[in-house]
Amino acid sequence: MHALIAIDSFKNSMTSMVANQTVADQLAKYGVTASQVAIADGGEGTVAAFLANQPGGQAVDVETVDLAQRPIEATYGYFAAQQLAVIEVAAASGIQFLTSGLNPANTNTYGTGLLIKAAVERGATKVILGLGGSGTVDGGAGILRALGVRFFDATDQPLSMVGADLGRVSRVDTSQMLPALRQVTFVSAADVTNPLTGKLGAARIFGPQKGLASNQVASYDQAMAHYMRTATGAVSDHPADGAAGGIGFALRYFLHAQVQSVFELIAELSQLETRVQQADFVISGEGQVDDQSFMGKVPIQISHLAQAAGKNCYLLVGRQKGAGATFAKQGVTAVLPIVDQVMTLKAALKQGPENLARTADRLARLITHPV
Amino acid sequence: MHALIAIDSFKNSMTSMVANQTVADQLAKYGVTASQVAIADGGEGTVAAFLANQPGGQAVDVETVDLAQRPIEATYGYFAAQQLAVIEVAAASGIQFLTSGLNPANTNTYGTGLLIKAAVERGATKVILGLGGSGTVDGGAGILRALGVRFFDATDQPLSMVGADLGRVSRVDTSQMLPALRQVTFVSAADVTNPLTGKLGAARIFGPQKGLASNQVASYDQAMAHYMRTATGAVSDHPADGAAGGIGFALRYFLHAQVQSVFELIAELSQLETRVQQADFVISGEGQVDDQSFMGKVPIQISHLAQAAGKNCYLLVGRQKGAGATFAKQGVTAVLPIVDQVMTLKAALKQGPENLARTADRLARLITHPV
Repeated sequence: MHALIAIDSFKNSMTSMVANQTVADQLAKYGVTASQVAIADGGEGTVAAFLANQPGGQAVDVETVDLAQRPIEATYGYFAAQQLAVIEVAAASGIQFLTSGLNPANTNTYGTGLLIKAAVERGATKVILGLGGSGTVDGGAGILRALGVRFFDATDQPLSMVGADLGRVSRVDTSQMLPALRQVTFVSAADVTNPLTGKLGAARIFGPQKGLASNQVASYDQAMAHYMRTATGAVSDHPADGAAGGIGFALRYFLHAQVQSVFELIAELSQLETRVQQADFVISGEGQVDDQSFMGKVPIQISHLAQAAGKNCYLLVGRQKGAGATFAKQGVTAVLPIVDQVMTLKAALKQGPENLARTADRLARLITHPV
Repeated sequence: MHALIAIDSFKNSMTSMVANQTVADQLAKYGVTASQVAIADGGEGTVAAFLANQPGGQAVDVETVDLAQRPIEATYGYFAAQQLAVIEVAAASGIQFLTSGLNPANTNTYGTGLLIKAAVERGATKVILGLGGSGTVDGGAGILRALGVRFFDATDQPLSMVGADLGRVSRVDTSQMLPALRQVTFVSAADVTNPLTGKLGAARIFGPQKGLASNQVASYDQAMAHYMRTATGAVSDHPADGAAGGIGFALRYFLHAQVQSVFELIAELSQLETRVQQADFVISGEGQVDDQSFMGKVPIQISHLAQAAGKNCYLLVGRQKGAGATFAKQGVTAVLPIVDQVMTLKAALKQGPENLARTADRLARLITHPV
């Protein structure tokens, strides 16, 4: 028997890849082979997932800077045969770099721009940028600067384009943009649809969690609108422009990026549909499934693929909310929680892989011993 | 598909019959029929289990007394076609009657004797006595008195044979025993093997939990030995003589009872082996299974029957201790704990039936949707 395993991460417990391998190890005990597809959300771990899912890739280390311009080494993924680079915003501009005193006003995505530049100089003609886990709200201006776009204030002085500079932009000069960019297709890998400004904009929705004081949100949003107007001539709503503190906007407007959901990209590049068809059954799951919020959930997208292919699909989850029958309509054969004895949440999170292994062992036994 | 369900009780959570029915209800949702065998341990619920397992029985209410001679109504099971009575010691002499001031010295099993007498007078030619859950340590003397045996002290005064009288017995007269007893076969349904006296005897092992003070255990044991010597001419060790505070002894010596395990009796009377063979798969389980103590455990005895018949056997349990592979060698296809999310032990016990229902639903889905 052969399984396709594509389990999302169990938040605060284990990554998708650890979960997949844990289950594959248990299936192997019963002679069941498995093909794994790592799931990512565009944030940390996205590059690793792409490298794991597709042969021929390599991790490329680059000297760059973090969101406060401090030197760091960061990694992106490169597939030479396809001239494809996969980059995480989190790698150089992630929220994990937000130390004391840093906030959107004094940080930017310049370091991520340096990663893109390095990938393009290496020969990438397609760049997938994972827009998750960022610590900045700079409208992508830092990235643009690293790629040669120049920003000036009213006195025509160049701006470094930290967040505090957004409201001061008077002129944007794209004449010195890296020429190679013209041959590059950009993809914004984003699961959020927020516009750049307004009630659902980057400053209001994502600012506070990145250190923006609540009394600064309104003026920050106005500065972001000024930045957009100066760059494009108007303020308008485009879905996903607000992703990763506005990087969505910069990629769409200046680099003509298309937006794709991370799962779609993974499914496409890993040939998920074909692999589901080739498997005898499918295993997915994640930390929690909820029968009230099926929309866009990775395990349910996978169960739909399994359903279309006429395969059983099992979800291994940290917690099941809702009745099994509701999941059944979505193509889920059974939801199997991995908590299997009296324990605290803390213990459940800490022992995630062991809990998952025990449950996978049971599932493997059940599957390989039909009545 | 057809299942045989024989789940032991989940201690402090649900009875065997509730567990069986809960699982049967879930299987029915998927078109799986089920035949149920209620499990008992000789204590409270044993009569109900026998009545549930075998057609043609009736519950007979009798006016009798409890272990302190207080009037109560108690129930035994009667199968007219087989002239078989099933009686629980717990019904009239159970530990639940131990109120303040009561202890082995001032209680006895007279009330259980009255139940036996009633059953024999009704026409029983076989009496199964479940020796679990008793609150007495009277060597079965109370039962014997109710059946016509007389006990006298050194001055030839009759004794009522509460525990305090054991050491005072000087003469035992069986000449007025109920004559009908000669035609009755007795079975001691016991899962303990303790002898009547000594280090593993009734007073030492079971006395304290029935209110015997620790400084009285040694003298009580000596009194029990005196009672045995007076009745039989010697003190000797027989397995299960110590069951139910020494009722095992009285049944063996005076009523020629055979000892059988409760499970053996249930298996025999419910034709368990045949029903396993007729089922497509078997479900058992209990509050906890432990791969270190397989000996005599009901779910493992059932898994052995399933193994012999070449059927899958699933154990639904409150807690699994030990690896699935160890259980597999005992014929267990899979052990499925019913705790399926973070919860406290208190909640797990309280919500036992709901937890079991969810897990049974998953199992039913898995079984009815083979890969």
